[in-house]
Amino acid sequence: MTRLLQRLLPALLAGVASACFGAAPAPAPIALQAQGSFAVGGSVVQGPGTDEPGKPGAAGQTLHGDHARVVFQIPANPRALPLVMWHGYGEFMKTWETTPDGREGFQTIFLRRRFPVYLVDQPRRGGADRSTLATRISAEPDEQRWFNVFRLGVWPRLYPGVQFSDDPEALNQFFRQMVPDTGPLDTDVAVSAVSALFDRIGPAVLVTHSHSGGMGWETVMRNPNVRAVVAYEPGSGFVFPEGELPAAMPSATGPLSATAVPLDRFQALTRIPIVLYYGDNIPTSPQPDNPGLDNWRVRLAMARLWVDAVNRHGGDARLVALPELGLRGNTHFPFADLNNVEVANLVSAFLAEKRLD
Amino acid sequence: MTRLLQRLLPALLAGVASACFGAAPAPAPIALQAQGSFAVGGSVVQGPGTDEPGKPGAAGQTLHGDHARVVFQIPANPRALPLVMWHGYGEFMKTWETTPDGREGFQTIFLRRRFPVYLVDQPRRGGADRSTLATRISAEPDEQRWFNVFRLGVWPRLYPGVQFSDDPEALNQFFRQMVPDTGPLDTDVAVSAVSALFDRIGPAVLVTHSHSGGMGWETVMRNPNVRAVVAYEPGSGFVFPEGELPAAMPSATGPLSATAVPLDRFQALTRIPIVLYYGDNIPTSPQPDNPGLDNWRVRLAMARLWVDAVNRHGGDARLVALPELGLRGNTHFPFADLNNVEVANLVSAFLAEKRLD
Repeated sequence: MTRLLQRLLPALLAGVASACFGAAPAPAPIALQAQGSFAVGGSVVQGPGTDEPGKPGAAGQTLHGDHARVVFQIPANPRALPLVMWHGYGEFMKTWETTPDGREGFQTIFLRRRFPVYLVDQPRRGGADRSTLATRISAEPDEQRWFNVFRLGVWPRLYPGVQFSDDPEALNQFFRQMVPDTGPLDTDVAVSAVSALFDRIGPAVLVTHSHSGGMGWETVMRNPNVRAVVAYEPGSGFVFPEGELPAAMPSATGPLSATAVPLDRFQALTRIPIVLYYGDNIPTSPQPDNPGLDNWRVRLAMARLWVDAVNRHGGDARLVALPELGLRGNTHFPFADLNNVEVANLVSAFLAEKRLD
Repeated sequence: MTRLLQRLLPALLAGVASACFGAAPAPAPIALQAQGSFAVGGSVVQGPGTDEPGKPGAAGQTLHGDHARVVFQIPANPRALPLVMWHGYGEFMKTWETTPDGREGFQTIFLRRRFPVYLVDQPRRGGADRSTLATRISAEPDEQRWFNVFRLGVWPRLYPGVQFSDDPEALNQFFRQMVPDTGPLDTDVAVSAVSALFDRIGPAVLVTHSHSGGMGWETVMRNPNVRAVVAYEPGSGFVFPEGELPAAMPSATGPLSATAVPLDRFQALTRIPIVLYYGDNIPTSPQPDNPGLDNWRVRLAMARLWVDAVNRHGGDARLVALPELGLRGNTHFPFADLNNVEVANLVSAFLAEKRLD
């Protein structure tokens, strides 16, 4: 037997070396059990008339559209609850992939931490851009505005100490990850598709960013398979119980209003753990000269009222301003910033605290 | 020492088990060394006027567009030459991912075979849909036409013995992987971006499908880093040396013409191994009632003339009609068909024969 072990050992070591380390530098390779992609949700429209079998190009043609695109990866020995990552406005799943400066994003960071990861392109965005409604894409130059709205700095200067690389290629990659709407923005279409994803995969944690934050609350109210929400800088779509609606908040981009929903719907948001993260350089006083910045002042203020409302009704919501934890310089994309591993560590700690990992 | 080995062995086995097999069913997990995504190529346009620092929303805004989106995966212990997979018309990188019936596509099949794999969304398509030119998307229903063009069958019937699942969900997924053009189709824009990818990653094998076939020939003529081409059903953009242009071929979709190029450019196509694969149900006689089908009759005929021209000039091109090898029922998407592992095995054998693996 011992001789057998001695004979086996070199092969075993070689196996470990080639299968598990190979030519790779640190970090160690990921043991990937499965990966793939699929469309979920959506609708079908049909042109006038009926198609005649054997008569190609006849009337009654169909178009399948308004679905979400989903890319998933399942590590070996996976944790129980997948993370579903939903991009924000003007973005698609690229948001969660390689960072603008070329490091691993949340997709790969959490895959390495043995979470199944599902990336979403919402309907009419990115790889899910087949819409059932015609649209026009203007291709209007607008990137300096987004530089300010996304709080990289005040164009053309990055904020001092901002967690964004000053390598021009990082900004080039950042601008090139923006994509147009290929159909009208429709919350119900988007939420329906993402809710269909939760129907398909079962219980999971929803990770939202910015515009998907509000659609995320709606998804929670529709689908009990959403077991927790990690929301990065949700900016709109805050829902309050009827009779508890806060006043609209004026800002340089116009008033920010919330939406009233029946209490029984709102209560879905009180049954799961929710954490909201906000980055740095969000002003507390009005910024009439910088609408893109002023807009975050009121959105953060509304988020604080919303967290209070959820907890007042027995919920478990928490708002984390990253600077208060000593994480300085984060942009509107903390999960892709230079310190995104620290940002990810906060999520790991939250999921561990809530026994969701 | 022997006792040490005996003490080490269980840990080693556990290490192999957890790191390399974990809870996974067969097949074994993939040891993934690295993965990510980036934009490559493209251009920048600027609006009129000049931006004033500190004045957000001022004139002179920019738009970065017309780049390709690239998603890559590098296995542990990778082979030397990556595979660059370029989708066809109306498609994006999804073409190479999970098949319509839910099995592994070429992306994962060749990752398991230890090839670095790069998937491309060409400019103005899928996740690379930020165009520098405005456009309108019609959302016109057209899927029955594609059902015929892509040779699943003659709508609404699948061909007998076709390598496509008769599960309605497979057709649903197939239709939902189509995406619109989000800017004018521009061969130079697309080839420039893909050539920039080969500049970035160095020598690699280009895998094309249908419309990218012709753009692939152009990429070879521009970039010596393309070391071989595996072309699935290239249908257009065949280039011949000046003076050797074949006559246009009439078909129910109109005449198919080739393009003349200077001999010195054409010769780039004679310096690398090239294989063209075509599926089943391609007619040899005119099909006036089925333009989508008749179109493949002349494209295959033109491809045969093209292979002869490349070899006449000392090249190494081969056309493989899959039925002649006993692979029956393949559609326009052999790499995603029910027998796509057999189809992949032909590629592995080709790359081994040419010492490109």
